[in-house]
Amino acid sequence: MKIVVINETSAADKNKDILLALEGREHKIINAGMSEQGAQPELLYIHTGLISAILLNLKRVDFVVGGCGTGQGYLNSVMQYPGVFCGHILTALDAWLFTQINGGNCISLALNQGYGWAGDINLRFIFDRIFSVERGCGYPEHRREPQTQSRLTLEGISTLVHRSFAEIIETLPDEVVNPAFEYPGIKDLIDIDSISDGALKAAFQRRFR
Amino acid sequence: MKIVVINETSAADKNKDILLALEGREHKIINAGMSEQGAQPELLYIHTGLISAILLNLKRVDFVVGGCGTGQGYLNSVMQYPGVFCGHILTALDAWLFTQINGGNCISLALNQGYGWAGDINLRFIFDRIFSVERGCGYPEHRREPQTQSRLTLEGISTLVHRSFAEIIETLPDEVVNPAFEYPGIKDLIDIDSISDGALKAAFQRRFR
Amino acid sequence: MKIVVINETSAADKNKDILLALEGREHKIINAGMSEQGAQPELLYIHTGLISAILLNLKRVDFVVGGCGTGQGYLNSVMQYPGVFCGHILTALDAWLFTQINGGNCISLALNQGYGWAGDINLRFIFDRIFSVERGCGYPEHRREPQTQSRLTLEGISTLVHRSFAEIIETLPDEVVNPAFEYPGIKDLIDIDSISDGALKAAFQRRFR
Amino acid sequence: MKIVVINETSAADKNKDILLALEGREHKIINAGMSEQGAQPELLYIHTGLISAILLNLKRVDFVVGGCGTGQGYLNSVMQYPGVFCGHILTALDAWLFTQINGGNCISLALNQGYGWAGDINLRFIFDRIFSVERGCGYPEHRREPQTQSRLTLEGISTLVHRSFAEIIETLPDEVVNPAFEYPGIKDLIDIDSISDGALKAAFQRRFR
Repeated sequence: MKIVVINETSAADKNKDILLALEGREHKIINAGMSEQGAQPELLYIHTGLISAILLNLKRVDFVVGGCGTGQGYLNSVMQYPGVFCGHILTALDAWLFTQINGGNCISLALNQGYGWAGDINLRFIFDRIFSVERGCGYPEHRREPQTQSRLTLEGISTLVHRSFAEIIETLPDEVVNPAFEYPGIKDLIDIDSISDGALKAAFQRRFR
Repeated sequence: MKIVVINETSAADKNKDILLALEGREHKIINAGMSEQGAQPELLYIHTGLISAILLNLKRVDFVVGGCGTGQGYLNSVMQYPGVFCGHILTALDAWLFTQINGGNCISLALNQGYGWAGDINLRFIFDRIFSVERGCGYPEHRREPQTQSRLTLEGISTLVHRSFAEIIETLPDEVVNPAFEYPGIKDLIDIDSISDGALKAAFQRRFR
Repeated sequence: MKIVVINETSAADKNKDILLALEGREHKIINAGMSEQGAQPELLYIHTGLISAILLNLKRVDFVVGGCGTGQGYLNSVMQYPGVFCGHILTALDAWLFTQINGGNCISLALNQGYGWAGDINLRFIFDRIFSVERGCGYPEHRREPQTQSRLTLEGISTLVHRSFAEIIETLPDEVVNPAFEYPGIKDLIDIDSISDGALKAAFQRRFR
Repeated sequence: MKIVVINETSAADKNKDILLALEGREHKIINAGMSEQGAQPELLYIHTGLISAILLNLKRVDFVVGGCGTGQGYLNSVMQYPGVFCGHILTALDAWLFTQINGGNCISLALNQGYGWAGDINLRFIFDRIFSVERGCGYPEHRREPQTQSRLTLEGISTLVHRSFAEIIETLPDEVVNPAFEYPGIKDLIDIDSISDGALKAAFQRRFR
């Protein structure tokens, strides 16, 4: 799996813990956000939410690991966008249930609240469980069908209620788009030239000009 | 404050605990969802998410208390819609921080996972903290301004990325809309006749025909 | 390892979850307490604490899995006795840290409070971590020595502050001893004839008469 | 109530949070342990456990607030002694249940593990609940009698299984006793001259010589 890790400023000092907890798993890890609290340029959860959604919608990555101080801000930010299904994951059990039941493509970690000594080990335990089960396989097993049905319905809703990603990219204000697009490495990850959807490519091109 | 409590089927037996935990608080409580697990007609988180969003967008209520087995499903459902800002609230501390920092208008409770003996007391402690602080006042106090700014930016994004609520009501499939609209009491809560936005009123009228 | 599982009455219906969570681990499991809430005869945490301590002190088992509704009652009961080092274990992280740092021979589980849906999975995760690390190996590694020193000092204290186990068996009141000794299977586990310590053997013989 | 707060070295930097969380409650607070991590002289949980037990047994205080990194070490240390009933308290709900059900005279806090941002607020919430209910009143109310009975039985056991406190003071090794007794302020808190039990007074006098 291709996984992007993306931290905003308030919990950026936990970025190294996340990377370490993801090590040795045979997934490709991309570190797209901040790794030092308060460094410049700064990303807020407003920006990490947008970047996450772009990378998922462009299929640049399969899974996003985000978060913020409590996990609630990033969660509410990334969930604004179509095609994002995000769990608020605090424990190994949350991870294991969410992966199987909700089969989401994003998690929001609480990286300051409740994050004390051995918080790095807890992250490892979370990833151990995410990657030990089949995404969306259902739990318990006999609930597989209704859970899958709910997930598919939700995916349909997500497409219907949101504007197209091209429209979204066009209409978001500069204060949301610019810090995200100008963050080191993001332009390369988006890789406009290789976007096949014409309208979406054009939207990105206009914003990046 | 006008608060709606809305339970889907899997955790509907916790509905009475929520109502009890909300008692004696001088808020107006509306119980709009299920109160018995597996009763008919059934609401899934797909439906309670939609109903919650409708009631918030029509300003029928100020605050929504929802949830599901783990809290993740309802959270992902209700967050599909514009104007909804939802916290995944498991403890009194979550409640206290989310209310002040994120100032959301909705919470998603985990009503099966981790909900054991004295879970009802935990709900009471959660509501004690939600209603003991000012929504969106910021925490810690010196972070008020950037937190407020992020919330306002997020509200703006929510409007820009979503279709209008009228379009949403028009385009959602029957399997999403019908169980929600036909659930006892929902039509009265929506109260189409009193909707002032013409397009939205028309959208509801067409779906309710 | 030889592990005894021992449940008191209030959480006895979780006994089957514990047994299931311990399955397939190549440890010998003895189920010594209740397996049905409210069944007769009944064991209170007063009794399960005593039985646990006896089995540890007689080296009949290497490790005890106990608990009660919140985990606090059994913890306070079993900790009355010499040679017992018990952790209050709620999560996989607790389990992993306690095993390495404190190297205890007993855990107390919260089997009603916070024990909801998927509580059985959480137990499995707890045991996964207990059995994945070396007991008393220290964490982090460079703290091994002071942690080991503290454990050894504590073991010394435990012996010095308590009466001998023979005295304890002799002086405890009937209401504590009898329900424990008369519980089905306990006499066989204690196996008085094979106790090598003469004073202790004599004490048991007097109480069992 | 007269409450002593006593921190060992590894979590001593949280001492100020505990004091702040106890402020404004009309209880007399004594800060008897460390307030800076790694300062000299150092107290380990071995020592804070002993000091706690002495102060409770001499009735110098009504309640002890202790803890360590995970809460498990101090818990196992303080529980070695007679007359100590200690809860492992992580949340407001733990506090509320333990106070009513177990009516203990001591709590062990986890001050590094899981202690992140807003950990200080969580402490405040814990104390809010400890002091909002009657110690040992039972919960739920109809369980008052059996719970009281279990507590009284446990108190009886505690006296029977331990050596007398005078014997304990006499026999503990220097490495346990000396750092405790020589810690600034402890001698004054013990106040040997005012100990009425002759044997206990003599034991302290011999150790302090």
